Amino acid sequence: MNDPAGQPEPADPTHPAEHVFAWLDDEAERRSQAGLVRRLRPRSATAEEIDLAGNDYLGLARDKRVTSAAAAAALRWGAGATGSRLVTGTTELHAELEHALARFCGAEAALVFSSGFTANLGAITTLSGRESAIVTDNYIHASLIEGCRLSRADVAAVAHSDPEAVAHALRTRRHSRAMVVTDSVFSVDGDKAPLPELSAACREHGAGMIVDDAHGIGVLGEGGRGAVHEAGLTAEPDVVTTITLSKALGAQGGAVLGPRRVIRHLVDTARSFIFDTGLAPSSAGAALAALGILRDEPQRATRVLDVAAELVTRLRAAGLSTSDPDAAVVSVHAPSPEHAVAWATRCAEKGVRVGCFRPPSVPDGVSRLRLTARADLTSTDLDACVDAITMTAPQDAAS
Amino acid sequence: MNDPAGQPEPADPTHPAEHVFAWLDDEAERRSQAGLVRRLRPRSATAEEIDLAGNDYLGLARDKRVTSAAAAAALRWGAGATGSRLVTGTTELHAELEHALARFCGAEAALVFSSGFTANLGAITTLSGRESAIVTDNYIHASLIEGCRLSRADVAAVAHSDPEAVAHALRTRRHSRAMVVTDSVFSVDGDKAPLPELSAACREHGAGMIVDDAHGIGVLGEGGRGAVHEAGLTAEPDVVTTITLSKALGAQGGAVLGPRRVIRHLVDTARSFIFDTGLAPSSAGAALAALGILRDEPQRATRVLDVAAELVTRLRAAGLSTSDPDAAVVSVHAPSPEHAVAWATRCAEKGVRVGCFRPPSVPDGVSRLRLTARADLTSTDLDACVDAITMTAPQDAAS
Repeated sequence: MNDPAGQPEPADPTHPAEHVFAWLDDEAERRSQAGLVRRLRPRSATAEEIDLAGNDYLGLARDKRVTSAAAAAALRWGAGATGSRLVTGTTELHAELEHALARFCGAEAALVFSSGFTANLGAITTLSGRESAIVTDNYIHASLIEGCRLSRADVAAVAHSDPEAVAHALRTRRHSRAMVVTDSVFSVDGDKAPLPELSAACREHGAGMIVDDAHGIGVLGEGGRGAVHEAGLTAEPDVVTTITLSKALGAQGGAVLGPRRVIRHLVDTARSFIFDTGLAPSSAGAALAALGILRDEPQRATRVLDVAAELVTRLRAAGLSTSDPDAAVVSVHAPSPEHAVAWATRCAEKGVRVGCFRPPSVPDGVSRLRLTARADLTSTDLDACVDAITMTAPQDAAS
Repeated sequence: MNDPAGQPEPADPTHPAEHVFAWLDDEAERRSQAGLVRRLRPRSATAEEIDLAGNDYLGLARDKRVTSAAAAAALRWGAGATGSRLVTGTTELHAELEHALARFCGAEAALVFSSGFTANLGAITTLSGRESAIVTDNYIHASLIEGCRLSRADVAAVAHSDPEAVAHALRTRRHSRAMVVTDSVFSVDGDKAPLPELSAACREHGAGMIVDDAHGIGVLGEGGRGAVHEAGLTAEPDVVTTITLSKALGAQGGAVLGPRRVIRHLVDTARSFIFDTGLAPSSAGAALAALGILRDEPQRATRVLDVAAELVTRLRAAGLSTSDPDAAVVSVHAPSPEHAVAWATRCAEKGVRVGCFRPPSVPDGVSRLRLTARADLTSTDLDACVDAITMTAPQDAAS
């Protein structure tokens, strides 16, 4: 483990306040016994590994046009936004990015946050509240869960991918104001939410909908306009979309897209917008450049789906149990957290970096390798990936 | 107002789902009548205004060494981190920044988040919980409040800057595990928390302490090592410090500094760390460069305090009512939210950008101009600032 530490001295066990955080050691021991200790593994700039673990779906994070735009924005606008978006943290570059995002996705308006995480907090908390009901899929992303918790709404989490259950929860809610909150593509298995059915349930029961399109934008829909666009919902008055700028768009940050009245409400009231420093100009510039590339090269979005499909076909042919991916994410079941970690480590030794998801990052408790397709993987890369994963599979992993 | 909007079409009032978010218009009308509507005012890259509104205390956000480091990092490492810090989002640059931050501040270890906001969420939620008490100053920053809410702890917010009240709350708490949460420098008036007294209360009552040093780092303490360092607490086993990389360090991001066991616990359990994309390399590179400059040019930290003191002296001499600043932030009382907005607008017309804080961004409900001193303000700049603020003051603003 590379410790994120600065000083070599160990804790002094005789210090009078040493006991205050001693309970953390017990927790660490428990996690260790359960195989749930995490390690930060710093990567080098010149690593030769094939990356099947990151979320750079279109291969844009290291595209020279995108990195040059990031560099140019830092030099022109400064390294940081210098303040809240409401004070000094909005540059013309932020405004341009917001216009471009809204136009690309066909939404009325857009608002950029410093991360998808804070965008989700802002959208959920300001559009609900104590007197609101929220109905969620029980596999939603942690940032959506945190938003629901913060909102103080009456939250019902229903079975995964079950619009009937959502409709039932909406029908039997106690508060008149209601919101359905879902991912468009679930981050662990890469399966799509039934957006048309969810939207119909919302319409029938007078609820709004917040869709986190983090794994859809750049990958699904016409030219990568996302899963919400694919479902024809980006311009609807009752739908709010959140996206990230840090996956397919290769940068950092997040955004909320939706009706103008929603965006104005966020500007005035979203605490994770008002009380946060604006996104760094370099990241805004990079996302804007990536969006332009996606507009000019829409085939990147279809290519990533083809790569995901091929990965699944070949891993299944080798007897592995994988998810049925609707987007770029493919998961491969592992027999246990320990097996998953060891498997991922052996893949890395063979030059392929794969993700390893274990509790609490998996809603169903099943540990997995998590693979992400990328538009810029060559067929040689794919061969190497399939070889590495199948040759290092634990015996119990075959389905 | 520059609308963060992409499409010119107005909402269609005949749409069957139009009513879902119609309540937002009523809220907007209420805010409008109360003078609480916010506007995003995009700034240009070549603006000639003097900035007394941002948090770029040391003038490093546009320092060529810092912007060049941001640009170089984007070109070398990519525009984005590509994933969670636990997957692909930790580069050697992130590790280097964490080592440098811990070493500079004298903490055992450090962990970088994508914002100070998410760093606060992570630290508070993981170090407390349902079976914990949290005692806060009732003027703490919104991100700390959100962290307390998310933590599900039993939270007591006591009177501002009152260590006796904190001690009383700790003494009478129901849970044995307890944490005091405070800003080191409060963001509205720039006054310092009584850290030595708070630490003594924590020691007496077996509580830990989380101090948000967002406005202290780079400004207070030896060579800008922050208010926690100034109080001799950065290496203590019961103290956790959070900082931002987006104010004095001119970049974006945040960090938690503290005992190694705390940092390991965050890596394993902090949802705002695990489920967020890592900080963009450009911002990590910029913060690292800024830290190096601060180490080499410690006089920047004292300069910013001198500028703040001079501002206060001269504004008071002109009859205005200002806060007693302990760091870079100076606030000037305004008679009402509307007066504050108009005053700030008139300052901008005179070429000086000042902050304007109104409810709900002010804990005491008093609207203010918020001024921030910067190390790189010249005496000509200062003359212009004082002239602009005093000449445009509303009649009722004089104390």
